[in-house]
Amino acid sequence: MNLLSHAAQQFQESAIRRTGILGAAIPGLISLAAGYPAPEVFPWDDLQAITADLLARRDGNTLQYGATRGYRPLIEQVLAKTLHDRGITGTFEDIVITTGSQQGLDLVGRVLIDPGDVILVELPTYSGAIAAFHNLQGQFAGVPQDAEGIDLGALDAAVASIRANGQRVKFIYVTPNFQNPAGLLMSRARRLALLELARRHDLAILEDDPYGSIYFEDVTTAADTRPIKADDADGRVIYLGSFSKVLVPGLRVAWMVAPREIAQKVELAKQAADICSSLFDQRIVHGAMDRGVVDRIAPGLRAHYQAKRTVMEQALQSSLAGRVKWTSPRGGFFLWIELPAGVDDRALFDRALKQKVSFVLGSSFFVDGQGHGYARLAFSGISHEQISEGITRLAAAIATD
Amino acid sequence: MNLLSHAAQQFQESAIRRTGILGAAIPGLISLAAGYPAPEVFPWDDLQAITADLLARRDGNTLQYGATRGYRPLIEQVLAKTLHDRGITGTFEDIVITTGSQQGLDLVGRVLIDPGDVILVELPTYSGAIAAFHNLQGQFAGVPQDAEGIDLGALDAAVASIRANGQRVKFIYVTPNFQNPAGLLMSRARRLALLELARRHDLAILEDDPYGSIYFEDVTTAADTRPIKADDADGRVIYLGSFSKVLVPGLRVAWMVAPREIAQKVELAKQAADICSSLFDQRIVHGAMDRGVVDRIAPGLRAHYQAKRTVMEQALQSSLAGRVKWTSPRGGFFLWIELPAGVDDRALFDRALKQKVSFVLGSSFFVDGQGHGYARLAFSGISHEQISEGITRLAAAIATD
Repeated sequence: MNLLSHAAQQFQESAIRRTGILGAAIPGLISLAAGYPAPEVFPWDDLQAITADLLARRDGNTLQYGATRGYRPLIEQVLAKTLHDRGITGTFEDIVITTGSQQGLDLVGRVLIDPGDVILVELPTYSGAIAAFHNLQGQFAGVPQDAEGIDLGALDAAVASIRANGQRVKFIYVTPNFQNPAGLLMSRARRLALLELARRHDLAILEDDPYGSIYFEDVTTAADTRPIKADDADGRVIYLGSFSKVLVPGLRVAWMVAPREIAQKVELAKQAADICSSLFDQRIVHGAMDRGVVDRIAPGLRAHYQAKRTVMEQALQSSLAGRVKWTSPRGGFFLWIELPAGVDDRALFDRALKQKVSFVLGSSFFVDGQGHGYARLAFSGISHEQISEGITRLAAAIATD
Repeated sequence: MNLLSHAAQQFQESAIRRTGILGAAIPGLISLAAGYPAPEVFPWDDLQAITADLLARRDGNTLQYGATRGYRPLIEQVLAKTLHDRGITGTFEDIVITTGSQQGLDLVGRVLIDPGDVILVELPTYSGAIAAFHNLQGQFAGVPQDAEGIDLGALDAAVASIRANGQRVKFIYVTPNFQNPAGLLMSRARRLALLELARRHDLAILEDDPYGSIYFEDVTTAADTRPIKADDADGRVIYLGSFSKVLVPGLRVAWMVAPREIAQKVELAKQAADICSSLFDQRIVHGAMDRGVVDRIAPGLRAHYQAKRTVMEQALQSSLAGRVKWTSPRGGFFLWIELPAGVDDRALFDRALKQKVSFVLGSSFFVDGQGHGYARLAFSGISHEQISEGITRLAAAIATD
């Protein structure tokens, strides 16, 4: 239909199928597909105490409609604590709380994209962003990445070519920290050069950072994850942060910091989209921030996911060394592999299901129809045993080619 | 900007101003503007028990990402209980859980509206629907209402005129039960005739029913609120239900029942809009349904709001009889008044603020630029004393004209 093109629809149907129904339909399936946080590191005791306390107070506002922009004390915590820690300056008028970062992508798209506008994205890029912008009738230009991040020469050429073609380009969408799917960390030099390029072409940057706090301390420091937004001197970066990966995703609470004219338009779009994000969820997150829970559990989360990364790499090393290639992720939830020459992600997916293992098709993350030689493997939400066994099964699926 | 026209933006800014900032900015203000449920009828004990129980189980899925379509056990309860009680038949494939009914309006709009399509709405109609469809570049044709509901002669003529004009009309948006803002209850005969008209013109009906369970038992029975959807033999009605008014609004949980092709498209649009509604919120609502809370508290809610309606009518009778006119609402949260001749809603609003009372401008609910002779008064969320004092202040504001 209109806002859902056939391609987007097929893509999304496949995504729903992969992440949803499949798990239930195949008993014993190990999902390397779902990029879920690990429930064993959820702060259960704190969440019990916080919700019990919230409801015991019987403050009617706790379960009432809330302001569209978000629960003010939570916004103030994000300003005073999270933005401060990440080196970003901002004021109340720059922040909007969203129903997950996915809503942030959708609302920014709704405010910025006119049908036919071209969005510049990394190759590969987050499939949820593709879906959101696609539904708004945006078009895409994909830009390759190297080990340091998005290729600025190619980006420059893409902007020139789009404009020569009479099309408008509105913004560059990037995920500098441990990108979903490729796991890459953009270098500091590349971030600054990207900001300079955006300035030269007068483009906005949409910086999506759900994984920034999940860096692996054996190879990365917090300084390596400094957001582009922290160096944004002229108000061209829109930054998306989230509590889904650093607290829990079942409370749909994320936030955006943007130039205030953009934030105001996003607020208006949000009012018509869902009035407000769950106030109860926002108050629970506020309670968690207030008690220092997010900071307290962060080192444990980093260690937890780092250990899982190590297990997956060891399994790949032992079952698939020389057959698949990968760059060791320095943070985040994903390991991105290049399949052996001639192996197609779709054909492999069908064989993998027979081995009772799933992954996400590499091609889901490419806007140019490519990527069939790749697969995204998530190590975040499953046990060490499942990771090892999943890779063993994947190796069997690859071997039957 | 593009998706937010100037008019929609002004409208929404004014709405945000009225419902949000004002309360904080004017100490002692009595808001007859905010259509909030009453916190004193929230089932606190049940919600405390349900959340404590949910978190004590430490089931990781409670706080994880959920299926886009919604938490399956909740969908099954809506099917088995709510739809059954309302005379609607449906299957799992027809239902989508949404982040409040506002998201239902937005997603249905995204699936059905192409820019320039005309939406038929009542005069007046819910301002949140105007905002949602406006942001999707829909156009509007307003149809007057009489005491039985939307005027079918005028509706017929509007469809003919729009089509003669070469424009497409996609659906009719109605709120048959205790409409926000006018409080009207559409008669059974009018509902059936509307359905027949929609069939004749091959139009869809979007039926929004947040207040259906809040009927006043002194003048209305459950049978009077039977949804149009219950008589929908050929799959042209999309029905929106919500837990905001019958449980609490701070958990953002509503639902839609639609022909399955529409429901599937809505699911795809929702995946790109916010992935899923808060799973924690959905599980709490599920717990409330499971324990029979929604049914148990319903008679108390009806009595609570009915009493407030009586207080407001008595106050109007004693302070403004003969100056303003109204139809006694048979359910819902609102009383809609016609102002004395020559009194403009905008001018009155400014005077009302000086008297420390607020309301919603009648013109906010009209798509044709009219309605300046009306005001919406909410009696739902404030005390009997505040209602009486609010009307006294409003009368003073009117008297200073």
